[in-house]
Amino acid sequence: MNAMTPPAELFDRIISYPDPEPQARLAQLVGLDDHKTRLSKILGLLVNPGGLANWARKHHAGADALLDTVLRRPPLVVLAGDVGSGKTELAETIGDAVARQEDIDINLFPLSLSSRGQGRVGEMTQLISSAFDHTMSEAHKLKSPSGRSRGAVILLVDEADALAQSREAAQMHHEDRAGVNAFIRGIDRLASARVPAAVIMCTNRLNALDPAVKRRAAEIMAFARPDAEQRRFVLDLRLQPLGLAQTDLNALVEATGQRHGREYGFTFSDITQRLLPAIVLDAYPDQPVRGARAIEIARAMQPTPPFQEASL
Amino acid sequence: MNAMTPPAELFDRIISYPDPEPQARLAQLVGLDDHKTRLSKILGLLVNPGGLANWARKHHAGADALLDTVLRRPPLVVLAGDVGSGKTELAETIGDAVARQEDIDINLFPLSLSSRGQGRVGEMTQLISSAFDHTMSEAHKLKSPSGRSRGAVILLVDEADALAQSREAAQMHHEDRAGVNAFIRGIDRLASARVPAAVIMCTNRLNALDPAVKRRAAEIMAFARPDAEQRRFVLDLRLQPLGLAQTDLNALVEATGQRHGREYGFTFSDITQRLLPAIVLDAYPDQPVRGARAIEIARAMQPTPPFQEASL
Amino acid sequence: MNAMTPPAELFDRIISYPDPEPQARLAQLVGLDDHKTRLSKILGLLVNPGGLANWARKHHAGADALLDTVLRRPPLVVLAGDVGSGKTELAETIGDAVARQEDIDINLFPLSLSSRGQGRVGEMTQLISSAFDHTMSEAHKLKSPSGRSRGAVILLVDEADALAQSREAAQMHHEDRAGVNAFIRGIDRLASARVPAAVIMCTNRLNALDPAVKRRAAEIMAFARPDAEQRRFVLDLRLQPLGLAQTDLNALVEATGQRHGREYGFTFSDITQRLLPAIVLDAYPDQPVRGARAIEIARAMQPTPPFQEASL
Amino acid sequence: MNAMTPPAELFDRIISYPDPEPQARLAQLVGLDDHKTRLSKILGLLVNPGGLANWARKHHAGADALLDTVLRRPPLVVLAGDVGSGKTELAETIGDAVARQEDIDINLFPLSLSSRGQGRVGEMTQLISSAFDHTMSEAHKLKSPSGRSRGAVILLVDEADALAQSREAAQMHHEDRAGVNAFIRGIDRLASARVPAAVIMCTNRLNALDPAVKRRAAEIMAFARPDAEQRRFVLDLRLQPLGLAQTDLNALVEATGQRHGREYGFTFSDITQRLLPAIVLDAYPDQPVRGARAIEIARAMQPTPPFQEASL
Amino acid sequence: MNAMTPPAELFDRIISYPDPEPQARLAQLVGLDDHKTRLSKILGLLVNPGGLANWARKHHAGADALLDTVLRRPPLVVLAGDVGSGKTELAETIGDAVARQEDIDINLFPLSLSSRGQGRVGEMTQLISSAFDHTMSEAHKLKSPSGRSRGAVILLVDEADALAQSREAAQMHHEDRAGVNAFIRGIDRLASARVPAAVIMCTNRLNALDPAVKRRAAEIMAFARPDAEQRRFVLDLRLQPLGLAQTDLNALVEATGQRHGREYGFTFSDITQRLLPAIVLDAYPDQPVRGARAIEIARAMQPTPPFQEASL
Amino acid sequence: MNAMTPPAELFDRIISYPDPEPQARLAQLVGLDDHKTRLSKILGLLVNPGGLANWARKHHAGADALLDTVLRRPPLVVLAGDVGSGKTELAETIGDAVARQEDIDINLFPLSLSSRGQGRVGEMTQLISSAFDHTMSEAHKLKSPSGRSRGAVILLVDEADALAQSREAAQMHHEDRAGVNAFIRGIDRLASARVPAAVIMCTNRLNALDPAVKRRAAEIMAFARPDAEQRRFVLDLRLQPLGLAQTDLNALVEATGQRHGREYGFTFSDITQRLLPAIVLDAYPDQPVRGARAIEIARAMQPTPPFQEASL
Repeated sequence: MNAMTPPAELFDRIISYPDPEPQARLAQLVGLDDHKTRLSKILGLLVNPGGLANWARKHHAGADALLDTVLRRPPLVVLAGDVGSGKTELAETIGDAVARQEDIDINLFPLSLSSRGQGRVGEMTQLISSAFDHTMSEAHKLKSPSGRSRGAVILLVDEADALAQSREAAQMHHEDRAGVNAFIRGIDRLASARVPAAVIMCTNRLNALDPAVKRRAAEIMAFARPDAEQRRFVLDLRLQPLGLAQTDLNALVEATGQRHGREYGFTFSDITQRLLPAIVLDAYPDQPVRGARAIEIARAMQPTPPFQEASL
Repeated sequence: MNAMTPPAELFDRIISYPDPEPQARLAQLVGLDDHKTRLSKILGLLVNPGGLANWARKHHAGADALLDTVLRRPPLVVLAGDVGSGKTELAETIGDAVARQEDIDINLFPLSLSSRGQGRVGEMTQLISSAFDHTMSEAHKLKSPSGRSRGAVILLVDEADALAQSREAAQMHHEDRAGVNAFIRGIDRLASARVPAAVIMCTNRLNALDPAVKRRAAEIMAFARPDAEQRRFVLDLRLQPLGLAQTDLNALVEATGQRHGREYGFTFSDITQRLLPAIVLDAYPDQPVRGARAIEIARAMQPTPPFQEASL
Repeated sequence: MNAMTPPAELFDRIISYPDPEPQARLAQLVGLDDHKTRLSKILGLLVNPGGLANWARKHHAGADALLDTVLRRPPLVVLAGDVGSGKTELAETIGDAVARQEDIDINLFPLSLSSRGQGRVGEMTQLISSAFDHTMSEAHKLKSPSGRSRGAVILLVDEADALAQSREAAQMHHEDRAGVNAFIRGIDRLASARVPAAVIMCTNRLNALDPAVKRRAAEIMAFARPDAEQRRFVLDLRLQPLGLAQTDLNALVEATGQRHGREYGFTFSDITQRLLPAIVLDAYPDQPVRGARAIEIARAMQPTPPFQEASL
Repeated sequence: MNAMTPPAELFDRIISYPDPEPQARLAQLVGLDDHKTRLSKILGLLVNPGGLANWARKHHAGADALLDTVLRRPPLVVLAGDVGSGKTELAETIGDAVARQEDIDINLFPLSLSSRGQGRVGEMTQLISSAFDHTMSEAHKLKSPSGRSRGAVILLVDEADALAQSREAAQMHHEDRAGVNAFIRGIDRLASARVPAAVIMCTNRLNALDPAVKRRAAEIMAFARPDAEQRRFVLDLRLQPLGLAQTDLNALVEATGQRHGREYGFTFSDITQRLLPAIVLDAYPDQPVRGARAIEIARAMQPTPPFQEASL
Repeated sequence: MNAMTPPAELFDRIISYPDPEPQARLAQLVGLDDHKTRLSKILGLLVNPGGLANWARKHHAGADALLDTVLRRPPLVVLAGDVGSGKTELAETIGDAVARQEDIDINLFPLSLSSRGQGRVGEMTQLISSAFDHTMSEAHKLKSPSGRSRGAVILLVDEADALAQSREAAQMHHEDRAGVNAFIRGIDRLASARVPAAVIMCTNRLNALDPAVKRRAAEIMAFARPDAEQRRFVLDLRLQPLGLAQTDLNALVEATGQRHGREYGFTFSDITQRLLPAIVLDAYPDQPVRGARAIEIARAMQPTPPFQEASL
Repeated sequence: MNAMTPPAELFDRIISYPDPEPQARLAQLVGLDDHKTRLSKILGLLVNPGGLANWARKHHAGADALLDTVLRRPPLVVLAGDVGSGKTELAETIGDAVARQEDIDINLFPLSLSSRGQGRVGEMTQLISSAFDHTMSEAHKLKSPSGRSRGAVILLVDEADALAQSREAAQMHHEDRAGVNAFIRGIDRLASARVPAAVIMCTNRLNALDPAVKRRAAEIMAFARPDAEQRRFVLDLRLQPLGLAQTDLNALVEATGQRHGREYGFTFSDITQRLLPAIVLDAYPDQPVRGARAIEIARAMQPTPPFQEASL
């Protein structure tokens, strides 16, 4: 029904797994082991549903009703949490773990921001439809008659709230609603086609997602800001090679956490995109980085405030 | 007046009764016996209005005024309740009971989400009109001169609030209002044609339905969240084959009900789409499902909160 | 100025009086004698204005200023009240009383819901204009040079609030406002043409009517929910033939009235469209209707709440 | 710049003065003597500005600065007050007094409700421009080189708030604002052309008028509901010929005024369009009007509530 | 880029200075001496920037940085104050003082209300652009190679708030915002061209002006309501020739000021456009104006309330 | 995809560095040393990323992870602060410091206000896209295979809030949202192309910026109102040459700061665009500037109030 938009305009940059670069990035995501495990299991089952039957044969003969319940879930996972909490990083790298675990190739299609269109009526709907058409078509090629797919496709929708806002919001624009509907149709088509494809949505405004979208999610995984252990990992990785003392690193971990009168600490990206560059630029070009000064900078910096859902 | 939209674009997947699959699903809907009985009676009378006259002849000779009152009701039933409370499941399977009871074939036409269109002016109106045209045309073929129909048609409108919102809402878009009017006209046309057709609307936002739509409903049936007995049925069916102990199952039934400080329990779909998969995935691929761990998972999970009508 | 819309698209079903069917329905409208009398007088004078002169000659010679005041009123009557309070029933049947009283034929044109159009700009305005054009044209044919018309026309606008909302509402859409203006022009044209035509508007949201429309109303008649006597009439008519005991009927009349903590009773249509069918379906197909069970059903049923004007 | 809309579509019915019918209606407007005097003086000066110079020569030689101040006022008068307070009646009849006083012919052009258009973009602006074009053109013909006009034109804008709403209202539609601007331009053009033309606006929502419109008003005259004397006049005129006793008339005057707990009495049109017809219809066709019954009817009737400006 | 709109449609009436009529009107503006002085200096410097250098040479050799600061200001002055406070009058007449002071000809182009257009998309932008094009083109002709211009141009934008509303207002229409931008561009173009042109904006809603417009203003001059001395001047000028006693004039000055419970007095135009005409018309055509009656009229009249910025 | 808009319509005036004029203006920006340093470092690294590697080699061998973190930041810096706080001045002149420091030519492209378009659908998106296209194309020419660029490009977006408003604002127009998306795409394209180009946004409404824009900022620099030292610098520079006494200058510094009951002092532009011209004009043309009078003027003047974010 829709003219097909070429993939180059739909997706930012297609990522293929396995690949050492996302493997390394995934390894650096500390404190998210539970998310990694669950997400790779879900994606693994979509690629290789026979795995679950094997498991049942071994542990729970006769659990057909239960297996059926699990396998019938729509292929949608929602990652929800603050800006900088690691959800996009996980979404962009988990495919590597699944590819290695199932020993197949996986492609990630990151829905481009341009798919939100330029405001022309019907445009967003067409772009979303095209993205699902493409995903479906690629996944179909990988489906194998033997039950186990030869590969898989992940469609990544980052900043998903922008295109799947709640229809509860009375003021939602008709065009936006049509985009949400196109999205729901896309999910339903993937689900009924039983192709090796999954959709990952990332959002920092879970409450703004349309209930019809949320209900279709097999999982909604929550991402919090990094705790002390996670912050230490991120800081150590980059600052230890500079020779900073452990007590300085400890002080940095503390300075980036919750502090007197502030209920939230630094996000992952507060640390990597703001704090560490500030420490470097302060020293550059004539000085080395010194611990005391780095701590001073960290203490003066304010973390990004959490998104205010209530202000909607 | 409107160009006819082809049925393939109007309906998701046409279901024909009798059929063992919906029969089985209907049988698994526990705790809804009253709804089943009333709904199958209403639909049965639409197909076979002579049945009521037979009943009156036997029990209440002279009750013509009363019969007339009953038979003149518009062929619309509204199923209202929380997400996951079983209303869509009932709507999709009750046709089987009616088909068997009246010994005829019945087709269910589920109005596709695409009928909400893509935001073009006049589009929603045309799609809804086409859906009613098609329903009317199919039902007309089944009408028999002898009074008893050779079959029947059910038009199912799930998530109906999206297209039949209250005209009280000052901010309703013109396009939406036109869609509501098209819907009302459709109901009125079916009613006056006295064809063997009925419309079932499912909604989780009863208050958002247009009063003119609500007034045309022969029945508005309320669906609550599952009680303990219903939850037990759903859980037992899937977990007993795994060999879970009865005390574990009891604990799961309790963990999914109302608990300290939480005024609502799990919906049907919270149990089937979220809890049971989580229990399986936790064990998969190396462990069997164990009762203690399943209970732990159930206790950690939050049920979907009820839709907040007040927030409108 | 406007292309004429064909009558078949404008009106739901044209009713001609006298006719035994509306005569019977009018007779069944109990408790509305005052409304019947006033409405038939008003409509009678529009058809036969000479009657008033005759009356004055007999009783009040010299009352020309007074007669002029009465005869100059616009031919618009507003029936206002809750859903199910009988206003539409009265509007659809009063023509029969007038036809018999004045011994002429009268046609009722019920403005179709489709006249609210499909949201195209200018459409509602054109449809309303066409409806008044048609009414005017038909009434013109019936006007007689001798002063007494050979017939009359009633234009019925049910659910009138939808097309004649108050211009006070700042958010009213331009299109809607144009529709209101077309309506006002229509009334003014009928008034100045002095043809045998009247307009009856029914609304359950009197406050939402445009003040310019309300000011043109010759009469605004209020309809309340049925009182005990009216409820008894409606129930007896349908349930006595079944052999229910008088004490049971009494209990049903009471159960459908105001009760502890509920400030309103059943509407007419609560009784006929919901309560009585529920009683029948409960017994059907195997049981007779029993009084005790009917009372139980009535007590469990909630009447439709009154329309909340304040929520606007 | 605009295509000219034909006068027949612009104006409801052109009234020419002097004429006995408006003369009589003006005479019946009691309690408005002050308004009559001021309005006829203002209109008279527009037609015959030389009159003021004559007056000054006689009483105040050397008052040129003062005369200039008076003659430079824009030719706009606003009549503001409740529905039914007599402002439209005065506007439609005052021309007769001016015509007789100045001994010339005057035409009243009542801007038709259709000039509010049908919602097409630019339509309202064009219609208002056309109305002023026509007024200007007609007035121009009547201008005399000798200083004293051979006639005059009054443009009447009833229910003016609908087209000259305040630009303060943030939500005002662009189309409406353009209409207000067209109106302001029209007034300014009449003012600078110094032709024998005046504009009378009637409104029941003075606060809703655009400040730029209000500032251009030479006068804003307030109309209150009728006081006891005025109500008596209206009632006596119509009911005395029927032979009602003076005590009954007194009781009617009282019943239509402010009463316990009601802060407002009947408007003029409450009395003429609602109360008196109700009294007549109650008696018609078999009874004479009786005082006691008339009082009973008056006491049971509610006057139109004042327009709630605050609700904007 | 834009088609040029002809000047006749852009400007109400072009005024050329020096001219005795505006000279006289400017002289009558009492109590605004400070505004007159500052405004004529600012405009004078735009025409004759060399004057400032002469002044510096004489008084402050070496003040180049300061002179540069002064001469670099954008050629925009905002006059802000209540309706009737004299700002438009000053804007329309100050050019005469500058023309005489600098001994050159000056033209005032008053932007017509029609420049606000008729609501067509892009229209307001085009009209404003055309107005600045014309101003620029005229000013360019007057620029002299010798540094001192042969003449100057003033663009007057009265009721400026209507076209330069704050972009802070979330609900501002796209069309309006484009108009504001066109205005800002126009100011910037005049500023960088260093032609002898200035823009005067008058507004009674300073807060509603776009911050980007306000920031470009070289001066924002506030206009208050007239104080006692100013009211006396206005009243004396017009009423003394009639022979009113000084005590009567005193009483009129007092009656038009702040009074018990009223926090504001009469505006200039309340006095000239409402009070004085009312006094005249009360006497006309048969009586002379009498002091006691004039005071009575003044006391009964309400001054225009100040514009409520807060209600935005 | 978009037709290219010619640079002349996109940019106000292209500035090339090094150039003595911006050098001088940058030198006059007192109290902003920290901002100057950080901004020139960031811009310098974009032009010459090899510099950072050199620094690391010298001070921190093995800091690759850290360098990578710094160099991967998007080339966007946001300058946020009150009107007149110097951010635009810094943005327009910092390029000179970078050009001299890195010994290359740098061009500044200031995005014209006209890029906000005239309200045509799709226009803003196209203009922003064209601006980024142009920036990209120019920067590409300057990229050198040797790692060190032959020059650099800065795209300056002043008053950036107007085109990058937060998507949180429910009422944001579709057209505006499309513009924000075009902006985000532009940033992302520059980042991934690794060309010597940077974007500087200035805004006085940081909270109104879209979170997706803010998250892409490498730095968000806050600009406060000038403190006493900064005000003194600005005042001395211009007034000392006039011979004002130091005590007078002290008094002016104090008068332009926070004072009793006023929580904010003068902005930079309050001093240069309003206070200093007022002092000059007060003296001109006949008097010299005197200290006492200058202080009087400063004390009577109100500084621009801070932008009220809360009022959004």
